[in-house]
Amino acid sequence: MKLLSFEVQGSQRFGAWVEGGVVDLTYRLGDKFPDLLSVLQAGALQEIAVAVEGAKADFSAEQITFLPVIPKPPKIICIGINYEEHRSETEREPTLKPPVFGRFSNSQVGHLGVIALPPESEKLDYEGEIAVIIGKAGRRIPADQVWKHVAGYAPYNDASVRDWQGHTQQWTPGKNFWHTGGFGPWMSTADEFGDDPELHLSTRLNGVEVQRATSRQMIFSIAELITYCSTFTALEPGDVIVTGTPGGVGVRRKPQLFMKHGDVVEVEISEIGVLRNVVEREA
Amino acid sequence: MKLLSFEVQGSQRFGAWVEGGVVDLTYRLGDKFPDLLSVLQAGALQEIAVAVEGAKADFSAEQITFLPVIPKPPKIICIGINYEEHRSETEREPTLKPPVFGRFSNSQVGHLGVIALPPESEKLDYEGEIAVIIGKAGRRIPADQVWKHVAGYAPYNDASVRDWQGHTQQWTPGKNFWHTGGFGPWMSTADEFGDDPELHLSTRLNGVEVQRATSRQMIFSIAELITYCSTFTALEPGDVIVTGTPGGVGVRRKPQLFMKHGDVVEVEISEIGVLRNVVEREA
Repeated sequence: MKLLSFEVQGSQRFGAWVEGGVVDLTYRLGDKFPDLLSVLQAGALQEIAVAVEGAKADFSAEQITFLPVIPKPPKIICIGINYEEHRSETEREPTLKPPVFGRFSNSQVGHLGVIALPPESEKLDYEGEIAVIIGKAGRRIPADQVWKHVAGYAPYNDASVRDWQGHTQQWTPGKNFWHTGGFGPWMSTADEFGDDPELHLSTRLNGVEVQRATSRQMIFSIAELITYCSTFTALEPGDVIVTGTPGGVGVRRKPQLFMKHGDVVEVEISEIGVLRNVVEREA
Repeated sequence: MKLLSFEVQGSQRFGAWVEGGVVDLTYRLGDKFPDLLSVLQAGALQEIAVAVEGAKADFSAEQITFLPVIPKPPKIICIGINYEEHRSETEREPTLKPPVFGRFSNSQVGHLGVIALPPESEKLDYEGEIAVIIGKAGRRIPADQVWKHVAGYAPYNDASVRDWQGHTQQWTPGKNFWHTGGFGPWMSTADEFGDDPELHLSTRLNGVEVQRATSRQMIFSIAELITYCSTFTALEPGDVIVTGTPGGVGVRRKPQLFMKHGDVVEVEISEIGVLRNVVEREA
């Protein structure tokens, strides 16, 4: 099942992506569940599946505005340096634990939305990633239990303003510019995959592939990330763990390749779908 | 005016601290404002002041459980290395911009609540800080406009699990252990101070003063922090900027001084009040 958040005529809604468009679940279940986050909090994916079964699309893609899959996650936990090819291109030493930083929710943008190139920088870079959406609360989740806590997966573009990322050792400013974190078009629920699925990730800039990897190539596996993060923080339904980007980022290329006004950037997980954003200089 | 969030008999409420206790504002205005965050979002501090004027306390301190001043801020933006004495004790190079990292809201705990010493560490350290609560949204706020965006100030204890903070260069894990960020007892609204107030901060561990500084000693002033942070992110009402800790942290003492089960830690801003927490080993 493919679940998403969207807007129609100024109304924020959630739904399921089916052949031909979106089944409006706010229309069907909005009294009970105001949004996708509340579905996850209620552990109600099964109930949603029943409502979606056999339903026809209410809207085409052209009729809706895609929102970030979860517009306001309780937490957006981002992982850095989680593929060996990216680690070596950044010339960073290996670490025994994964680097972790946070995104604030208003740094996010939905599928087909504009990724904002701020006037303060010319160094906006793509980072295609696999986002893991948490479906069940947990703390200190052991590796053999993690899959019960995963609601689904989605493409994420952890677009980064490199000069601001490097102002100090803490990357947070460069990772939190307004409307830089693409999240969509939808999440595919975990029941479509086995535990520990191999997901195939790629990033394209103006149609040219610039990153490619699979989840098998992560330095810290999805299971290890969930165990580690749930040790310091209590994971909640709707939390998003953004699992790191492979090699090929623009800042490490020779010559460097940054995103500019008018560029189209795509992050694809071939088992899920394509997140597409246009880059525009912020007014 | 001193505003706080609290719980009585399982009900989450907000109120004003007056002589003798708490004026219950949920009782008086709850139909309009479900919580303190919604008051800030509505820009309704003036309306609150009218309701508090002349009101008597409904509850004593003993009858309530203090919650974090804002239990779920849209963002908790934390600043590192913002006092020269602390910079030099950490042996870190000066930076032209402030280090920034985030806290997740479930890392917070209210006044008189338990700061959790996790079983994974013996290196839980205090960090007394001045929290600035944003009252008005803004982006790229110029220095001469920042004070219109401040709703108030409160003590904050940015308690840190030092070994997890140092797992990688990114401090996030050590800054986000569950129930480590003390925030309270209340915020004092900005109208009690002039612009750019000098606030006197001190931290005590078991009654012994371990940190002391004033806001005048910050490397990056409150105004500069608001300008900087609002450049990368759109500030929203209820956002909290935690402005950094002075010298005297436990990890840099010789011998080192960490918090242990049964310790009482206090962060005082003399113009506002005392945030007191007990440290307990997490079960």
